Amino acid sequence: MAVRWPEGARSAGVACGIKAGDLDLGILVLDGPGAWAGTFTQNAAAAAPVRWCRSIRGNDVHALVVNSGNANACTGEAGELAVRETAAAAATLLGCEADQVLVASTGPIGVPLPLDKIVSSLPVVATEVTDDPAPFARSIMTTDSHPKIVSLDAGDARVVGVAKGAAMIAPNMATMLAFIVTDAKADAATLSEILTSSVQRSFNRISVDACESTNDSVLLLATGRTQTEPNALREAVQEVCSRLAEMIVRDAEGGTKLMRIRLQGARDEEHAAMLGRAVAASDLWRAAANGCDPNWGRILAAMGAADRTLSLEHAEISIGPEIVFSCGSPAGSLDVAAKVMAEDDYVITCVVGSGDGSAEVLAADLSTEYVRLNAEVTT
Amino acid sequence: MAVRWPEGARSAGVACGIKAGDLDLGILVLDGPGAWAGTFTQNAAAAAPVRWCRSIRGNDVHALVVNSGNANACTGEAGELAVRETAAAAATLLGCEADQVLVASTGPIGVPLPLDKIVSSLPVVATEVTDDPAPFARSIMTTDSHPKIVSLDAGDARVVGVAKGAAMIAPNMATMLAFIVTDAKADAATLSEILTSSVQRSFNRISVDACESTNDSVLLLATGRTQTEPNALREAVQEVCSRLAEMIVRDAEGGTKLMRIRLQGARDEEHAAMLGRAVAASDLWRAAANGCDPNWGRILAAMGAADRTLSLEHAEISIGPEIVFSCGSPAGSLDVAAKVMAEDDYVITCVVGSGDGSAEVLAADLSTEYVRLNAEVTT
Repeated sequence: MAVRWPEGARSAGVACGIKAGDLDLGILVLDGPGAWAGTFTQNAAAAAPVRWCRSIRGNDVHALVVNSGNANACTGEAGELAVRETAAAAATLLGCEADQVLVASTGPIGVPLPLDKIVSSLPVVATEVTDDPAPFARSIMTTDSHPKIVSLDAGDARVVGVAKGAAMIAPNMATMLAFIVTDAKADAATLSEILTSSVQRSFNRISVDACESTNDSVLLLATGRTQTEPNALREAVQEVCSRLAEMIVRDAEGGTKLMRIRLQGARDEEHAAMLGRAVAASDLWRAAANGCDPNWGRILAAMGAADRTLSLEHAEISIGPEIVFSCGSPAGSLDVAAKVMAEDDYVITCVVGSGDGSAEVLAADLSTEYVRLNAEVTT
Repeated sequence: MAVRWPEGARSAGVACGIKAGDLDLGILVLDGPGAWAGTFTQNAAAAAPVRWCRSIRGNDVHALVVNSGNANACTGEAGELAVRETAAAAATLLGCEADQVLVASTGPIGVPLPLDKIVSSLPVVATEVTDDPAPFARSIMTTDSHPKIVSLDAGDARVVGVAKGAAMIAPNMATMLAFIVTDAKADAATLSEILTSSVQRSFNRISVDACESTNDSVLLLATGRTQTEPNALREAVQEVCSRLAEMIVRDAEGGTKLMRIRLQGARDEEHAAMLGRAVAASDLWRAAANGCDPNWGRILAAMGAADRTLSLEHAEISIGPEIVFSCGSPAGSLDVAAKVMAEDDYVITCVVGSGDGSAEVLAADLSTEYVRLNAEVTT
């Protein structure tokens, strides 16, 4: 059964001409003003649309306009103006204020946004809105191989999320976008608290190439049509975020593996996540994973560089169920570990001490395909 | 004219059977006890030979034994024992104490060191020592395409250094070793101060893949035969370190480019170096460099992620002489920038503010060849 937006939300996606032929402009419209919350990249080079969304925090919103094919980042005053004019054009169509329109972009950095294409296509896309999220989910894709949509019940309400992957195509910068809509009734503060904690353990625990984008944005919008238990909403949002995050890693550009890097025995959860991210960021380990080579020394070296105070003599590393390093020395069978690594999806467990901190980070391998795609000259 | 070791130092290199057929065991012998200084990896998974060298700090030394083909890292008590027995065997041959013998290793992590091959070959290699550093420089190579030797005058004394590159072959971990010998008379404290400051602006300012090794070691040994001005020694050591560091980046595995990333206007030198390393570590920028694609947004994104407080609207980025980002907006000609990037060796200048801090970081590009070599299953 096809997924539908929760009550009070509709969307559409069209091709406005930024990308050659593909859907590249999406709009999500709420039937009435809705509360929202957002988490954004912390990059100092944050894109103009990210800064716009931050500036309208606290306002209830009517719509979200998203384009792919251009990040509108590092584009100066012209980029800021393009966001304001996009919001103003949508507001005129919908009969609301410009500061009730969220804007997001994904694509190459540093290229002027073709504002005219967006403004001239907005009247078209706005008339096509339906409760089917698929065209909208397609319009935000870059090198994703398929649209990413998740729908869950949250008590009597529902939570539907769409995302685009952290995939790259030269000259694109990895850009992660996720938009989640619920018909639950919740105020902005509640949504913000739920979203922040959900993102912390989902989107903030994945890595494709350790390159933080200028455009990362996760938005949660509530149409407020249905009363539901806050905890039911929290659980559904957390689960939608986790599933979308996993879909992004599975669809990583050039990626052939989903590695679940589980850190245990760390000082605390943040320490565990930091070590997991260090392993996920190691080009050497990621290349070994691509070749199904159980070269666990690269995992230890990555953790040892990330925290110089670790007592790695007490660490234990397992690939799948096979313990390959224990009590300071090599252990187990590399043949067994290599067989685990031949799977598409496997667990790496690193016990780094006797602390209470644990975390799971999802990572992709590093392939020649990733390098090839990102070395292509397209600027 | 072939380079010779400074007076009081001789070396040899032989094939002891760790690697198939290649030279893999080297010895450097001082005619009498000499002062030395060392800088080592800060990795918590530091290899057994690194821990051994640290433990004999303060002792004058007679010799240095180095093997390639095995890092002797993460090898537990057996690895510690192997280092002690290597030092003891060399000491017996040379008539000194074991704690007057430095030991270094490079190669795969987590593989037991074949101690018997080293011990049985030490009597052979010890009888072959000459003032020609070439066989020794060859014996420490892994995937380096050529031995790396630099010789400079330091007033009346000389400084000769050899290094192996930060190149990788599966399942090897990047391992950088450099050994520098001078005939200058200097105590350990002076050598240490000179080496630390020299390493800071040479080996600590290069990156191939941002993966810190378990075995990195730079040693400076003085035979004490010649009086020379400390400043002349300092300048020569700094220059030898800089040249060896540049040779390592030029010979990076799979690398086709030497990028000189110059940071200016930072808060201080360390801030500048940190931002330069962030650009040097960006897989996305390094892949773009491989394809000669002037995708400068990836440089900004890398710096913006590394320091979230940067005011990037005031940043200026140049590729060669071409300014491609200025006053918050795209600038210049990407065609001109792409022509610069077609060269093997070029400068990227990033002005990030109006501070006094500047630094240069040398970086290599990311190629499919790098991924292929490090994905090979050899464990």
